Amino acid sequence: MESASAADSFDVIVIGAGPVGENAADRAGRDGLRVAIVERRLVGGECSYYACTPSKALLRPVLAQHAAERVEGVTGARLAPSAVLHRRDTWISHLDDSGQVSWLDDAGITLLRGHARLVGERAVEVDGHRHEARVAVVLATGSDPALPDIPGLRDAQPWTNRQATTAEVIPERLVVLGGGVVACELATAYAALGSRVTLLQRGPRLLGRAEDVAGELVADGLRAAGVDVRLGVQATTVQRPRPGGEVTVQCDDGETVTGDELLAALGRRPATADLGVDTVGATMDDSGYVVVDDTLQVTSVAGGWLYACGDVTGRNLLTHMGKYDARVCGDVIAARAAGRPDDGPGMRAWADHLGPPQVVFTDPEVASVGLTSSAARERGLRVRTVDVDMSSAAGASLQADGYTGCARMVVDEDRGVLVGVTFVGQDVQEMAHAATIAVVGEVPLDRLWHAVPSFPTMSEVWLRLLEQAGC
Amino acid sequence: MESASAADSFDVIVIGAGPVGENAADRAGRDGLRVAIVERRLVGGECSYYACTPSKALLRPVLAQHAAERVEGVTGARLAPSAVLHRRDTWISHLDDSGQVSWLDDAGITLLRGHARLVGERAVEVDGHRHEARVAVVLATGSDPALPDIPGLRDAQPWTNRQATTAEVIPERLVVLGGGVVACELATAYAALGSRVTLLQRGPRLLGRAEDVAGELVADGLRAAGVDVRLGVQATTVQRPRPGGEVTVQCDDGETVTGDELLAALGRRPATADLGVDTVGATMDDSGYVVVDDTLQVTSVAGGWLYACGDVTGRNLLTHMGKYDARVCGDVIAARAAGRPDDGPGMRAWADHLGPPQVVFTDPEVASVGLTSSAARERGLRVRTVDVDMSSAAGASLQADGYTGCARMVVDEDRGVLVGVTFVGQDVQEMAHAATIAVVGEVPLDRLWHAVPSFPTMSEVWLRLLEQAGC
Repeated sequence: MESASAADSFDVIVIGAGPVGENAADRAGRDGLRVAIVERRLVGGECSYYACTPSKALLRPVLAQHAAERVEGVTGARLAPSAVLHRRDTWISHLDDSGQVSWLDDAGITLLRGHARLVGERAVEVDGHRHEARVAVVLATGSDPALPDIPGLRDAQPWTNRQATTAEVIPERLVVLGGGVVACELATAYAALGSRVTLLQRGPRLLGRAEDVAGELVADGLRAAGVDVRLGVQATTVQRPRPGGEVTVQCDDGETVTGDELLAALGRRPATADLGVDTVGATMDDSGYVVVDDTLQVTSVAGGWLYACGDVTGRNLLTHMGKYDARVCGDVIAARAAGRPDDGPGMRAWADHLGPPQVVFTDPEVASVGLTSSAARERGLRVRTVDVDMSSAAGASLQADGYTGCARMVVDEDRGVLVGVTFVGQDVQEMAHAATIAVVGEVPLDRLWHAVPSFPTMSEVWLRLLEQAGC
Repeated sequence: MESASAADSFDVIVIGAGPVGENAADRAGRDGLRVAIVERRLVGGECSYYACTPSKALLRPVLAQHAAERVEGVTGARLAPSAVLHRRDTWISHLDDSGQVSWLDDAGITLLRGHARLVGERAVEVDGHRHEARVAVVLATGSDPALPDIPGLRDAQPWTNRQATTAEVIPERLVVLGGGVVACELATAYAALGSRVTLLQRGPRLLGRAEDVAGELVADGLRAAGVDVRLGVQATTVQRPRPGGEVTVQCDDGETVTGDELLAALGRRPATADLGVDTVGATMDDSGYVVVDDTLQVTSVAGGWLYACGDVTGRNLLTHMGKYDARVCGDVIAARAAGRPDDGPGMRAWADHLGPPQVVFTDPEVASVGLTSSAARERGLRVRTVDVDMSSAAGASLQADGYTGCARMVVDEDRGVLVGVTFVGQDVQEMAHAATIAVVGEVPLDRLWHAVPSFPTMSEVWLRLLEQAGC
């Protein structure tokens, strides 16, 4: 690794070394630009240590055990919580980022450790030391957990995703505030690992951005796993008289819930604190996200040198979509620096606007892409919604005895293409990508009819969906 | 169910009530044509009782148990062979077809039980009773196991897929002749259920029609499961002095292998015996398959009344491809009978020529579609082959500790589209369909780059493939 102090100027400085920053740095540097990346915490970012990766590391044993339980002919599968935590620790490298640092070295990217601040055009200060970026600065600082102003919440030192994904002890009673992906996934994990979990969701259903049926089936799944799911219930005050002691949540329905830990999974906010975006005149949206165009350039800043990608832009708060933006961003920076055309097929992040693919690793899983039926209608599309049971495909019931799940397809009637697809059920995670290719590829339904799903896979549910749509 | 004897004439007579015949009958009858289906054995056909369905019913517990074993945090999962057999029995309805008969009733299709023979233009005799088909006859008789002329083989009363998928007892020692899908899947099942399995494959590798790496990894998997896999070895004579007793196979390498049962999984042949195809002048190819066009019409027979679909045509010997042909065939028959255009988008089985999607439920699984790299070159395409390890996607290693597998993509360099994709690894079954949509949809690589796989799924291997291809 090149010594940071020897290099005060770079072609590109990327702020934030999560997967998004790493991808932007890697792509920007491929044609020889000299790239630095700044990180004040762990190289690898939130995703690698405190979010997707540890969540999936915890959840995969849970889901594999459930899957084994649901097949006549397999017996005795059980979860060993301490081994599950050990697996998680391996995946987060015991919070040691040296593996990721080696990757940066191999990619020829200079790591600057410290807190970065924009201090003017093409200028970044890292812990007070000034660096110049000859070509571009990329903001990839991500997001932080949001903690709303519920009286007593902050003082109660609630868990966020960070503590919940790295805990060494399984609390006897866990109260979860929220009903989104983080809340549902971690409730699934902790319930399986032995906690008595109570989930308090302000809204009328779980997974509010997904198709309603997804939230309903996930609520059913959580309840079957012993989680006390309470919908339409808002926490009004939180009390934790003694640090580390019992925590009590007062709800607006008059009930009180007590736990040994409290997980606040109440959304995210952009990580722009003390980033100096104001010093260069960048425009933020109402929620504080940095506004960019489809090349990921911050359009409000003159000179074309400032870019942003990942959660900090608020486009799609998902690791894979942030990485997608980062690839576009890095390629655009490299092309513009070399005077090459910047409008190649990979140089506009247009798929950001279609509705992102996403998999929720609950039980049942939710795999989706594109627009929900209601979101499509809000956009003014003339759509038709098609629903079928997953069990209409023999492959589903062969996969798990008594398989429960559903599939929904949202068809744009004017264009004869799909604008949204949702699968809910065990082991649907890899079904997301077929839907993603269909939606992003705008493959006409008439042609999808010739894409034959293999018997006896669960993907045969595509046949039932297309038949219902009139094929 | 309408009484068969009351109805000597129908609009359409379908011969063979497997999934293929059922689909053809269903689609042909949707607009009101009067349809009969003839079956001499079980309604539901080979697939439902003796092939895909029982195989998957047997294999799913095996694969679920292996999957559970490969995740730190799950312990104790083991296979209960008698429960596995019970699950299989449930799936094949204890060889009772009344559920399938009810489905025919509900679909308004008349069932004629017996042996069908063509006896002239639009004329079918069922156990000697003559029926007229005003519009069309569809041959959907499928295929039978082939038994080559190996001295002693027939007399040894070997198992074929029929006995191997319905056995009530797990033989202590099983000898498998063959190295295709049936051989590999059933060797996987029986090895897990407790048999000592020896597999003798004449060719140099397993799964000869798949990419070479698939056969190699499946051989590795079988060997790891205790199967004695012998490649390049041909059985020269078979001896079984006492029915039900030991069976001995002499091999051309001088070795002798002894088992308690012998499974002959040596390919298929069209089920045209005593079908009367000669009486109407239908042309067969060199292997005896009935030649049809892309509307599934038997072109060699004048009058446009004779169709064939499924295995009997030899187009693609796979249930799902047979059903695809059947849907096309049924729609074409209905359209032609009604005087509607017969060239709608669903009325040519053009996807038959692309190379079929297929999933092999071994461990590792093989999910593929389209052409292998060598088949593409044989067709004169200018292709580029891209290989990556499945473990290059974090989602794979999160799915199973120490995940082993690979992905291969065959790119048509002239058109910038995929013509073949193969995934080998645990739980890749549902990854086939994304590849199928990409190949059949001819989605350009430039556009696939915008179809973002979700993190952390195994489908992120698509990113690595596309990067290697230059995206």
